Amino acid sequence: MTTNPLAAALPDLDFVTDTDVLDSLSHDDAEWAPVGNALSAVRPRSTAEVQAVVAECATRGIPVVTRGAGTGLSGGANAVDGCLILDLSKMNRILEIDPDNMIAVVQPGVVNNDLKAAVAEHGLWYPPDPASAPWSTIGGNASTNAGGLCCLKYGVTRDYVLGLEAVVGGPAGAYGTAVRLGHRTTKGVAGYDMVGLFVGSEGTLGVLTEITLRLRPARAESPRTVVGAFGSIVAAGNAVAATTRLGLLPTALELLDRACLQAVEEWKHLGLSATAEALLLAQIDTPGKAGDDEAAALAQCFRDAGAEWAEQSTDEFEAEALFSARRLAYPALERLGPVLTEDICVPRSAVPRMLAAIEDIATRHQVAIATIAHAGDGNLHPLIRTPAGDDAARTAAQAAFEEMLTAAIDMGGTVTGEHGVGLLKRAGLRQEQEPGVIAMQQALKQTLDPLNLFNPGKVLGDPAA
Amino acid sequence: MTTNPLAAALPDLDFVTDTDVLDSLSHDDAEWAPVGNALSAVRPRSTAEVQAVVAECATRGIPVVTRGAGTGLSGGANAVDGCLILDLSKMNRILEIDPDNMIAVVQPGVVNNDLKAAVAEHGLWYPPDPASAPWSTIGGNASTNAGGLCCLKYGVTRDYVLGLEAVVGGPAGAYGTAVRLGHRTTKGVAGYDMVGLFVGSEGTLGVLTEITLRLRPARAESPRTVVGAFGSIVAAGNAVAATTRLGLLPTALELLDRACLQAVEEWKHLGLSATAEALLLAQIDTPGKAGDDEAAALAQCFRDAGAEWAEQSTDEFEAEALFSARRLAYPALERLGPVLTEDICVPRSAVPRMLAAIEDIATRHQVAIATIAHAGDGNLHPLIRTPAGDDAARTAAQAAFEEMLTAAIDMGGTVTGEHGVGLLKRAGLRQEQEPGVIAMQQALKQTLDPLNLFNPGKVLGDPAA
Repeated sequence: MTTNPLAAALPDLDFVTDTDVLDSLSHDDAEWAPVGNALSAVRPRSTAEVQAVVAECATRGIPVVTRGAGTGLSGGANAVDGCLILDLSKMNRILEIDPDNMIAVVQPGVVNNDLKAAVAEHGLWYPPDPASAPWSTIGGNASTNAGGLCCLKYGVTRDYVLGLEAVVGGPAGAYGTAVRLGHRTTKGVAGYDMVGLFVGSEGTLGVLTEITLRLRPARAESPRTVVGAFGSIVAAGNAVAATTRLGLLPTALELLDRACLQAVEEWKHLGLSATAEALLLAQIDTPGKAGDDEAAALAQCFRDAGAEWAEQSTDEFEAEALFSARRLAYPALERLGPVLTEDICVPRSAVPRMLAAIEDIATRHQVAIATIAHAGDGNLHPLIRTPAGDDAARTAAQAAFEEMLTAAIDMGGTVTGEHGVGLLKRAGLRQEQEPGVIAMQQALKQTLDPLNLFNPGKVLGDPAA
Repeated sequence: MTTNPLAAALPDLDFVTDTDVLDSLSHDDAEWAPVGNALSAVRPRSTAEVQAVVAECATRGIPVVTRGAGTGLSGGANAVDGCLILDLSKMNRILEIDPDNMIAVVQPGVVNNDLKAAVAEHGLWYPPDPASAPWSTIGGNASTNAGGLCCLKYGVTRDYVLGLEAVVGGPAGAYGTAVRLGHRTTKGVAGYDMVGLFVGSEGTLGVLTEITLRLRPARAESPRTVVGAFGSIVAAGNAVAATTRLGLLPTALELLDRACLQAVEEWKHLGLSATAEALLLAQIDTPGKAGDDEAAALAQCFRDAGAEWAEQSTDEFEAEALFSARRLAYPALERLGPVLTEDICVPRSAVPRMLAAIEDIATRHQVAIATIAHAGDGNLHPLIRTPAGDDAARTAAQAAFEEMLTAAIDMGGTVTGEHGVGLLKRAGLRQEQEPGVIAMQQALKQTLDPLNLFNPGKVLGDPAA
């Protein structure tokens, strides 16, 4: 029944024929990002199959949109018209765990938490922990340079990618050529940082087919949790700024407002009380008494900054429930209706000011905004909620979205801390970066992908075009 | 007396007229890398002056070779014929220290240790610590993505560069255009990682004129020092591999062989006894009792791996002397005659095998090799020593140099861990990376520097041409 010319040319590959499945593979989790009509989707099982697909698409001029679990929040994995969706979720093997060198080599479809569990059996730890870690894949994490909760102390995905195998076109050879970038060693400066260029390039430069990751030793103790409750979200922001000023370095320093806590509680019944306007959740993993001292200093810092109460949680279940609430905040709100997710990042000292600006923007545009934040990094996720089908609310939400980008840039921040540009932040990118810098990046894209085959229009595309 | 056309065109700039000074500015610290005849050298004091120089050089087709302190070890800052040397050592102002956001903004000529001292007054710490830190500049550190001793736990220069100002040509505009890359926030994924591309590009893509750096809180305690003495260098290598296997993560894990210790002692009289064949020096900065436990575990690990003795140093002067010896090993050996410095990096488990290969290569080629190493990172610096003016020894040394590169690649390693490719590792780069990957990088260089104005021939140049 298929009239897909690729399926005829590549009969051994696993093409998707069901239109419902094709629809579900045609978009990520970004609300309101445009979705094109894909020609087809395919689920390769090896680098060789990816190479064959890319070569065939290049011959036929069919754009390639690569996706993992589709948990992206910027539309980076959304179909463009006439594209092939390259679904890498079946390339999900952990190829190697090397405890002697604290390295893992994985296919792109491995789920983040599955990797964490596998390396834990060797006494190792893969730190990057986007809130989507139970579902999102390492390939997607690398393509977006995903952040997460523990970046504050342990960095982002880019800090853990040592090497890549990528299927590319252009200067390296014909489309479908596989190249190895980077190295297996902990250090290495041979040539340009091609790994850094591909990480975070959102599938616009090629297809990642293998990823070599740096690991860390597992932590000997469970981290301590410190919780502070605040009478206003701006007061919580002040506590975040004070934490940095004191030189305290928690593993994570997360902010949840009351709307988020309520949404989680109504869904999961974790036993959270949501009387405060905002909670700060921190983890400290410094071992031993020094960690106890740091936790005490952090709680005191919260109190000094005006917390209604702040304590080290002595109840492991409570601590786990709180961090679960943090991870579940986004899906909990999504249950209640369309959510447009912001991802601004500002200098840490500007967190209180940005939180105040968000409140002001919400009031002026009469939109409901719930906020979760990797507050210690200055990375805020205001979540704009609209009733389904309410076009006026949607227009107001989009205006609020763009206004928050402008406010973040004005405070020395960026339009995307960790979700990527995809489709939703293309205008913001042009607002943040000068035309010369955009031109440099477009020239790099043109050089490495002269056919504009890989995820065309994303990141550097003109949103007005 | 000058017939330098640039000086006539740019009368307000500080051109070097003394030929001895021009000679001294025409090379870095790489033994035997070829040095061309520079047309002139200039010492700009501002970004605007750099812009004027680059524009004028582009008009006249004069290559621009940028240098900082000239402590490089790969010839990356060596003159090419007819070039202008752009000496950034006068652009040495710290423009901003922002304790609230743990950020510093510096001009490229700021010396690493000067920055460390300045931020320490604010309770902050800039970790990257190449052994050249007393002399080398942040601009040079960023251009080579310099490593150092504490990378093992705290990463390399790239991990601390958030943003750059660079003077470029090509897609961004006419040569002499200044662009701002990256961000001031701790996270940010807007567009491609242009900062990562410029860091470590060894002056081949443009001129870094301002660098925004991430800082860390100062450490509350002095690190502990653990020393182990070994009867053979390979035994020391086994202890390094064992350390990683146990999940111990010292700040630094350095190896010095007897030749290095002797050379330092003869020069500086630090009171080092050099009876062992190799020393391992480790620093542990985990605070409190956990740090004591880690230090004890590390000493025990050294003993279990065959150390003649291993102890935590309780004498702060002794500990300081040992790390001074490490930092002084290279200049101490240089005093004794020409030194050709290797910079291979292998997976940590291959350290013993690589050390054995170095001994074997030294024997076969009858060359004297002293070894210092950031052993915990697998980054080894075999130092090939030759009597001055002995051409046969020099030929043997060069053969040994190339053979060590091959051995490192065969063990899954890289030809340069932290010094860069410059001139000396161009053949090694081509041996390590496949032609397609070299072609991708050459295409990037051509795209961002279409006139091939910036440090031509370095890194990606054909050494046989």
